[in-house]
Amino acid sequence: MTYYFSKVIAASIPEAMEKTKAALAKEGFGVLTEIDVQATMKKKLGAEMKPYLILGACHPESAYKALQAENKIGTMLPCNVIVQELGPGKAEITAVDPIASMQAVANPSLGAVAAEVQQKLKNVIASL
Amino acid sequence: MTYYFSKVIAASIPEAMEKTKAALAKEGFGVLTEIDVQATMKKKLGAEMKPYLILGACHPESAYKALQAENKIGTMLPCNVIVQELGPGKAEITAVDPIASMQAVANPSLGAVAAEVQQKLKNVIASL
Repeated sequence: MTYYFSKVIAASIPEAMEKTKAALAKEGFGVLTEIDVQATMKKKLGAEMKPYLILGACHPESAYKALQAENKIGTMLPCNVIVQELGPGKAEITAVDPIASMQAVANPSLGAVAAEVQQKLKNVIASL
Repeated sequence: MTYYFSKVIAASIPEAMEKTKAALAKEGFGVLTEIDVQATMKKKLGAEMKPYLILGACHPESAYKALQAENKIGTMLPCNVIVQELGPGKAEITAVDPIASMQAVANPSLGAVAAEVQQKLKNVIASL
């Protein structure tokens, strides 16, 4: 089982971020958090790595339904989307597969919501 | 299999937030993100719910090791910790079990890091 959907595109990181945010918005996702992993690792550990950003994407209606069905599902929200640099002008965008990440949650009423969100994230990646 | 560790304490939400952040810091976690789910749901959907906050906790050394072992593990980082109100002066703190959330990732070299972080998050919850 894979646990993500991803696509490589010809874009700089700022371009890829803009495209990804626009694609998320089109599917109804807001971006609640943004982590610059490269900057965090440099600051905390002095470690060098390529540009790597994590966007916390939230589809409010789906998140609300998920929380009603499973109180502790906040441990797995929002849905992460990575924007990372593979090389100059080459970016990879990766969205988590919520069905994979939530597979330890034994709650059938969560399944339908996870499937809806999975489809929306697949659409986001496919549209890039 | 459960997918989290949690504890109920006698505390207001601000007190619980302070205690949780201190306990995370003691185990080496920084808080990279903070989502006020109650405020987000009110703003986006007009929905009412009790105070519910999601902290994105990151243990830099472990996160760096995890990223070296598994490039797409950013889809499951940082580790979420929920602080929610159960009633007046009664808060529940819940940390994700990284072994449960990462079970779809078939990478043995990630297992040791996930086990280390699991123990640290267990320590955080036990210390509250």
